[in-house]
Amino acid sequence: MSDAYRNAGVDVAAGDALVARITSAVTATWGENVVGGFGGFAGAFRIPGGYNDPVLMMTTDGVGTKLELARRTGRVHGVGRDLVAMCVDDLAAAGARPLAFTDYLAVGSIRQERDAAIVASIAEACSHAGCALIGGETAEHPGTMASDAFDLAGAAVGVAESRSIVTGEYITPGDMILGVASPNLRSNGFSLVRSIIDDMDLDAVFPGDHRSVAEVLLEPAVIYSPAVLAAVATGKVRGLAHVTGGGLTGNVPRALPAGAAASIDTSTWAVPNVFRRLGEIGTLDRKDMFSVFNMGIGFVAITTVGDTDRVADVIAEHGHEVTVIGDVIPGDRTVEFTS
Amino acid sequence: MSDAYRNAGVDVAAGDALVARITSAVTATWGENVVGGFGGFAGAFRIPGGYNDPVLMMTTDGVGTKLELARRTGRVHGVGRDLVAMCVDDLAAAGARPLAFTDYLAVGSIRQERDAAIVASIAEACSHAGCALIGGETAEHPGTMASDAFDLAGAAVGVAESRSIVTGEYITPGDMILGVASPNLRSNGFSLVRSIIDDMDLDAVFPGDHRSVAEVLLEPAVIYSPAVLAAVATGKVRGLAHVTGGGLTGNVPRALPAGAAASIDTSTWAVPNVFRRLGEIGTLDRKDMFSVFNMGIGFVAITTVGDTDRVADVIAEHGHEVTVIGDVIPGDRTVEFTS
Repeated sequence: MSDAYRNAGVDVAAGDALVARITSAVTATWGENVVGGFGGFAGAFRIPGGYNDPVLMMTTDGVGTKLELARRTGRVHGVGRDLVAMCVDDLAAAGARPLAFTDYLAVGSIRQERDAAIVASIAEACSHAGCALIGGETAEHPGTMASDAFDLAGAAVGVAESRSIVTGEYITPGDMILGVASPNLRSNGFSLVRSIIDDMDLDAVFPGDHRSVAEVLLEPAVIYSPAVLAAVATGKVRGLAHVTGGGLTGNVPRALPAGAAASIDTSTWAVPNVFRRLGEIGTLDRKDMFSVFNMGIGFVAITTVGDTDRVADVIAEHGHEVTVIGDVIPGDRTVEFTS
Repeated sequence: MSDAYRNAGVDVAAGDALVARITSAVTATWGENVVGGFGGFAGAFRIPGGYNDPVLMMTTDGVGTKLELARRTGRVHGVGRDLVAMCVDDLAAAGARPLAFTDYLAVGSIRQERDAAIVASIAEACSHAGCALIGGETAEHPGTMASDAFDLAGAAVGVAESRSIVTGEYITPGDMILGVASPNLRSNGFSLVRSIIDDMDLDAVFPGDHRSVAEVLLEPAVIYSPAVLAAVATGKVRGLAHVTGGGLTGNVPRALPAGAAASIDTSTWAVPNVFRRLGEIGTLDRKDMFSVFNMGIGFVAITTVGDTDRVADVIAEHGHEVTVIGDVIPGDRTVEFTS
């Protein structure tokens, strides 16, 4: 390979070696819907059988500046799970089953161990979500990114039966709002987190926890997709919201139709320690925190009063804590917090 | 919105304003296959009618460090075309029609004019390729990216009729290799380009051209997808290669089956001035250049001798220069250059 190109900072041999390293982890995510082999110009897959009028869904997201903490501490094994969670749970919020995933990893220079670990964590999370990792791009950006810097984004495609797409249109005042627990920050609010912990030693013990600051902040996101899709399959879910950037304040309205608002009682669940401590250290306004962080609720499902227990049971069967956190009231797609 | 969050460098209001600005450009790309409205958790679309056994294809790519020249000169209006070209032409190399696209724009901080221009250029290129821009993520990375830095990646999903997927399996020695012209670098080899032109004034006239260095190097990529899909529709295309990173050397073998190699006569087309001058300035080895740059051939189609004219005519009707640049010989998926 070109010496000139290597001198310019792009190590094609390192890229090829990385591909060889990750191939088995990637192909392990492939189910019966994947078509063809590894290394073509595009990954190929089929819509699974059983759909009468399949609608495809596509979404993209990144991990954001949570990666900066991963870079500084070398703890990259969870970032793939964060990435996949952000994407497949956006699909789940429409009731779509994830089928295929591609990742985009931009690096200053390829680091075999680190980058293989990142792709392995993506593959592991894809397998958990029942999604095939069918393509990816690892791009070296010498000169424009620091040698040890990296950024990670991805895109996911899923499928839903047309009449089963969860649009929120049937939601009416009186419906119940179920909150599904998130024990950690997932992948949102990290620019604020980083400004709050700017002076802290990442290896120090996190207040109120036995783990280090880095471990607490980098804990990987929960993936809700399998539980949410099982809940949707009951036919009893009227609305869904994936609580990402913007928190409950920003995301619950996206599930609501005109004429409906959400009343959420924040005393119905225990806000995890990590949020409370960050609020104290950063002297954050509690209302603001609900518009940046998930505050312990990573996914929301809305049902009629009569269907609430059944939907909650299905979600709980997948190992998530789930609680009624509020109800739908007349209004204009806003969220009112009580406690 | 949270002052604390704005102080941490994330301007949610600026993000919302950007979304408002780009909505009309984005929705203008939507054809009859797009389902639902703007602003959901995922974009939705249907497979168009007429497919008997549709296979979906997905690919992802970035623009790479061509963006660094765009950043330094403020010339961002072509980078969306580069991004879409990289992705939809990877789909075209499998014979797949692009349906949906998502973009990922990472920025140090949102710059309304610049970022709206970038998304508009993505939307324009999607329209040209017949692809709907159904989602995107604009991620602010304060602190980890310079305020004016940006990175751009995307993912595309397409569809092909199962029996029409171009796999290269029918290619045999004696087949003809058609090269489709690329007048410029497209989006590949820019880390090398940047090391070569490191000392040059980007506003100076490029040697042998009337335009500036920046204009010549940032000229947007050709999008081959419409022409290639028309060629595939003749049923006479046996193999396809999208000439990206790795040049003809790296990409033509991806189209070839076992037992076949490519013999390419580099005297059959005129290598554009930009490549020749970069080679002179950087004192690059000519062989190496063919493994980094497209050298004037951005896409390759392989046909039988008898079908060559017909396929070439269809591609030429779409406004591309197309030439027989070589033939298939017995061998092991390599490329031999003659001149």
